[in-house]
Amino acid sequence: MDLINRQWTVAEHPISELVEKHFKYQESSVSKLVEGEVLLKTHYLNIAPVMRMYMMKGGAGISREKHLKIGEVIHGRGIAEVLESFHPDYQVGDFVHGQIGWQTYKVSQMKQEERFIKMKKRNLPVHYGLSALGMTGYSAYCGFMDRGQPHAGDTVLVSGAAGGVGSLVIQIAKAIGCKKVVGIAGGPEKCAIAMSLGADDMIDYKKDDIESKLDEYMPEGFDVFFDNVGGAILESSLNFMKRGARVVLCGGISEYTLPVRPIPQNIMSIRSKAASILGFLVYNHTHQFSEAEDKMAGWITDNKLSPLVDMVDGFDKMPEALMGLYSGTNIGKRIVKVIDGPEVLY
Amino acid sequence: MDLINRQWTVAEHPISELVEKHFKYQESSVSKLVEGEVLLKTHYLNIAPVMRMYMMKGGAGISREKHLKIGEVIHGRGIAEVLESFHPDYQVGDFVHGQIGWQTYKVSQMKQEERFIKMKKRNLPVHYGLSALGMTGYSAYCGFMDRGQPHAGDTVLVSGAAGGVGSLVIQIAKAIGCKKVVGIAGGPEKCAIAMSLGADDMIDYKKDDIESKLDEYMPEGFDVFFDNVGGAILESSLNFMKRGARVVLCGGISEYTLPVRPIPQNIMSIRSKAASILGFLVYNHTHQFSEAEDKMAGWITDNKLSPLVDMVDGFDKMPEALMGLYSGTNIGKRIVKVIDGPEVLY
Repeated sequence: MDLINRQWTVAEHPISELVEKHFKYQESSVSKLVEGEVLLKTHYLNIAPVMRMYMMKGGAGISREKHLKIGEVIHGRGIAEVLESFHPDYQVGDFVHGQIGWQTYKVSQMKQEERFIKMKKRNLPVHYGLSALGMTGYSAYCGFMDRGQPHAGDTVLVSGAAGGVGSLVIQIAKAIGCKKVVGIAGGPEKCAIAMSLGADDMIDYKKDDIESKLDEYMPEGFDVFFDNVGGAILESSLNFMKRGARVVLCGGISEYTLPVRPIPQNIMSIRSKAASILGFLVYNHTHQFSEAEDKMAGWITDNKLSPLVDMVDGFDKMPEALMGLYSGTNIGKRIVKVIDGPEVLY
Repeated sequence: MDLINRQWTVAEHPISELVEKHFKYQESSVSKLVEGEVLLKTHYLNIAPVMRMYMMKGGAGISREKHLKIGEVIHGRGIAEVLESFHPDYQVGDFVHGQIGWQTYKVSQMKQEERFIKMKKRNLPVHYGLSALGMTGYSAYCGFMDRGQPHAGDTVLVSGAAGGVGSLVIQIAKAIGCKKVVGIAGGPEKCAIAMSLGADDMIDYKKDDIESKLDEYMPEGFDVFFDNVGGAILESSLNFMKRGARVVLCGGISEYTLPVRPIPQNIMSIRSKAASILGFLVYNHTHQFSEAEDKMAGWITDNKLSPLVDMVDGFDKMPEALMGLYSGTNIGKRIVKVIDGPEVLY
């Protein structure tokens, strides 16, 4: 079997906005396995805002993943099938999600820093391993449940409510009995979708005055704010903290292309509100991943939760799929389907 | 018995710094008790930074206590003995701490907003009810234990380490087995006292470069920072958060006399550290007061904790005692002894 590995590499480091010239397509051959190695075939690849930062010179201060040099395959998690294995822990036919990179095959020693997680057989679409049953789901579950400490009856605010993580948080909040769940998203289509997932009210940040809508929908403020956006939306929302409110900083997509990260000018009002501002990194919660996955799978089976996926078809679309993310075109978790053929259940 | 009530009232609203002309001394007679009332005799009065804000016009945005008008008795907690009681819950000889105000007697209906707490008999100095066994102790215990979530082995940083709350937090941290406890205070005397209470290292903010000392004493950063000071010390310290660190904002004495509250310019680094910035108001923790008091009393009895009290003698010294607080002259919890005679055990 003579396999051709298709790859996307860094052609040039982006300074601010990502454009086509930053990406380079190449093909290489797949090396022969040696003892301890596994041959992975990519089925789906993840598209995430942070990828732009990996591509920037010096990783733009992000130390968690090694920063990319010119010519290196772009970082990224994906779902892969084990095609061959010389590794005792992996069998042919297993599915894993982890650090594959932007390529169609990977020969791996499955080292810890690649953070591979073996998928459990649940007879659900295998690509859920990049949404509700993978890092996206772990982020939503651990960030909201462990950092946000929501209680039944709480008022919850979610920004990026039609995004991969936000759309799950909306549904988790309703599943656990939060009284009022308000989302923020851009445009009528996203707002309608978030309403269909259970949001009680939606604010369209492209059209509405955010603060007057918050005043209308939650006059007493929120108990938990799960923020995926940062910037001006974070600042406006901080004016609506109830006493003891929890604000989870999960993402800041509005800030990623700014040269300097903004500081909400009202952030110190957490003093008088006894509120909490909570940084969140999903890898601080590895001990909760298995619980998160089982809970999410349970809600999916009970029809309480449905992953919102924005599927892009074809490995050649990788750069386009990432570039579009910053202009807010995706609805739900953006994933690229790399393999041909119908949806695989696993 | 014809009792004369000595009182301090607001003569003028302060704009920034407190000076003598803002205070007025007066005497009045004590009214006769009616059904449901208690006559309280003040033994000790509390001196706290927040009092300046009560005295400012409109309470300087502080809504928790009603703001003071010209001519009104200044707010403040104290310890009092029940001299007479027409109230079923209080007996002659009971001691309470609560909202007495700057006066030597109070006739009270013991309403909820006065937040009176009956003291337990422990055969300890009665004035501990304004330090370790009252609000100061509740703030230290609930703020540090519940908000800060310290674990044995943690590295802990405490600013205002020779103040009322800070000196207790230092001792609690050692009592529960925190590995390294570093304090920040102003001047060699305060630093020496905090060391004698158990601090492993002290930083003198008047002399030392805070960041280079932090680098020396905690190269890996802190797990918990209990901040009583705010301002520049808060900002410097935020550069030393470990991943997952907790920063408890208990007080901001350095900020109280500034026209605009400063915002630490590095505060958003809580994102990349998955850290928590935690506002703290002791009245959010009333359900933990009894536990706090019992724990503190236990540590006192076991010689693990000793309240650090800065006792000022005489009711006439009230304005002076408060004005001096902002220039950092006190070591430990500042209390004014109102009664004559020796220390009372209760």
